[in-house]
Amino acid sequence: MPQSGSVSSDIGPSSATQRELSDAVRTYVDRELPTWFERELAPMRSENRELGCVIDAMVTLSLRGGKRARAVLLVAGHVAAGGEFDLPRLSNALFAMELLQSYLLIHDDWMDDDDTRRGGPSVHAALAKSYGSAREGAIAAILAGDFASALSQRAMARVPFSDRAVVRAIRAFAEMQERVVAGQILDVRAAPKTMADVERMHSLKTASYTTEGPITIGALLADADDETVRLLTAFARPLGVAFQLRDDVLGIFGDPQATGKPLYGDLFERKRTSLIVLASSLPEARALLEKEPSETCCRSLGNLIRESGILGEVESRITELVGESRRALAQLRIDERGRKWFDETIVFLTERAS
Amino acid sequence: MPQSGSVSSDIGPSSATQRELSDAVRTYVDRELPTWFERELAPMRSENRELGCVIDAMVTLSLRGGKRARAVLLVAGHVAAGGEFDLPRLSNALFAMELLQSYLLIHDDWMDDDDTRRGGPSVHAALAKSYGSAREGAIAAILAGDFASALSQRAMARVPFSDRAVVRAIRAFAEMQERVVAGQILDVRAAPKTMADVERMHSLKTASYTTEGPITIGALLADADDETVRLLTAFARPLGVAFQLRDDVLGIFGDPQATGKPLYGDLFERKRTSLIVLASSLPEARALLEKEPSETCCRSLGNLIRESGILGEVESRITELVGESRRALAQLRIDERGRKWFDETIVFLTERAS
Repeated sequence: MPQSGSVSSDIGPSSATQRELSDAVRTYVDRELPTWFERELAPMRSENRELGCVIDAMVTLSLRGGKRARAVLLVAGHVAAGGEFDLPRLSNALFAMELLQSYLLIHDDWMDDDDTRRGGPSVHAALAKSYGSAREGAIAAILAGDFASALSQRAMARVPFSDRAVVRAIRAFAEMQERVVAGQILDVRAAPKTMADVERMHSLKTASYTTEGPITIGALLADADDETVRLLTAFARPLGVAFQLRDDVLGIFGDPQATGKPLYGDLFERKRTSLIVLASSLPEARALLEKEPSETCCRSLGNLIRESGILGEVESRITELVGESRRALAQLRIDERGRKWFDETIVFLTERAS
Repeated sequence: MPQSGSVSSDIGPSSATQRELSDAVRTYVDRELPTWFERELAPMRSENRELGCVIDAMVTLSLRGGKRARAVLLVAGHVAAGGEFDLPRLSNALFAMELLQSYLLIHDDWMDDDDTRRGGPSVHAALAKSYGSAREGAIAAILAGDFASALSQRAMARVPFSDRAVVRAIRAFAEMQERVVAGQILDVRAAPKTMADVERMHSLKTASYTTEGPITIGALLADADDETVRLLTAFARPLGVAFQLRDDVLGIFGDPQATGKPLYGDLFERKRTSLIVLASSLPEARALLEKEPSETCCRSLGNLIRESGILGEVESRITELVGESRRALAQLRIDERGRKWFDETIVFLTERAS
């Protein structure tokens, strides 16, 4: 077991904000995950140098951080459903979420040919460089992802809760994976043509494991009943879609200073996001989308998306989805700390500027 | 739940042979798995044509059979540990093993660039053909494997046994995956230099999920105690290594009529099997291994491996490992039907000619 529950008493009984919750969970994961890796992976790493090198590439990505947003929501879901704020006890579930994220990112980055991730090289890029071969790097990266997947399953199967709670959590963990992989298949194979297509993909690929999975798994570990899980899903799914639609907006109109991404970035990359799919119905936008991407052309397209009302349409849809989430939240009979965190999470995920 | 337990009464109480067990399990899986797929995958398949097409490629491979050897051993382990011969009740565990196998085969075939599998196109080859792009095929195949992995986890988390039994089985299922993926990493990254390296790889890559995993998972679902699981592992692990060493022998000296593989096949492919690793210590063999593979050269190498005593050495090692397995088996206090099946399995796996 990870060390003392000191973090718990710092925040657990207080009326902490979502931001404080978030900081506490991130600090905890960043501090404890390295120790966990050392203990759990020692036998495999020492088995063989080459094996150690592939495992280390996965570990490096996992420790390079990220916001630990899924771990935070798992804790919020757990507390909301009446569980204790006990990070050491939840640690294996938090690590399982992080490892699942590593697995998905490693595979995705290879598929999308993304060479950087979290401010460093992606795993396939790092391994390709070290082997001097793109193909060898790709093969080892897929295996590094598969290894993270196995490890995430082991972590989830070892959370110290009742067997019944663990079995229910594992079922949700598996179903979440089916959804997110199906979403990724849609993303690479089925260009969305309508707003409904886009939202369906966002629901499968993003909401599944960004909001819905973590929140319900946390709740299941607190023995939430089926009705609570149903309402938490009804709360988390539209929220996850709204979060991704906000991402779509920021991908074009976000302030580069805040997002760290280039202005009109998604337009340059011709990503099939909600705004671009909607814009494709305008002949003028279609003409611009067919041109070679340039600063001028992307600016025109951006203006068109704003002036034609498409931006407003997506903003309205975000508001609608947030409304859906809030209605489900209002129906939930949950711990008031959890309700407060969820309320703040809605704002945090859908009104953010970065 | 899959249909009636009629198969149970056909074989359960009788003194069936391992062969009859094997036929019964294979027949059951081949009959029930298509129905299970239809039921479980209907929503995802109908979601989107392109998504359906990727899922179907995975389903096609899973239904194209194979010997269902892992499912057979799971049932044997379950009965040996005192569980009932009840295939409908075990069905989700059997399907989980088959789906895990599909996942691993799909990823492996892409890594090894193998275009055929089970007498048809491998998944990445089929998808590459349908998309007219090797890279698109590879991406979709990795995702098809990831989807099979998620589905296998869901199946395993739904076996209708006690929560405690399911949690223990899932832990073993996850650990087995860590071992098999580590073995695959060794296979692609760390060419074995010694017989110990070869056996370590065989233990991780083959024994883990061919013998050890299925047998112990079956036993865990029958609430086997830790000592029984320990002894079953001590029985299954050397057996799995011996099975793979037999494969190494057949890969060079197997009768093409029986194996369906070319004479000296592994020599042509320069696979780093036990025999070839051992042969590398002979200067004469090293010289032949450095030449362009030809019929003559492979025949000389084959003769050298036989005449130098290397073949005999591997055969002795198989005998030793089988001895280890038999000693563990003798210590086990298990159902006599299970003991008999295991005895016959030893012969079947290590003395086979194909």
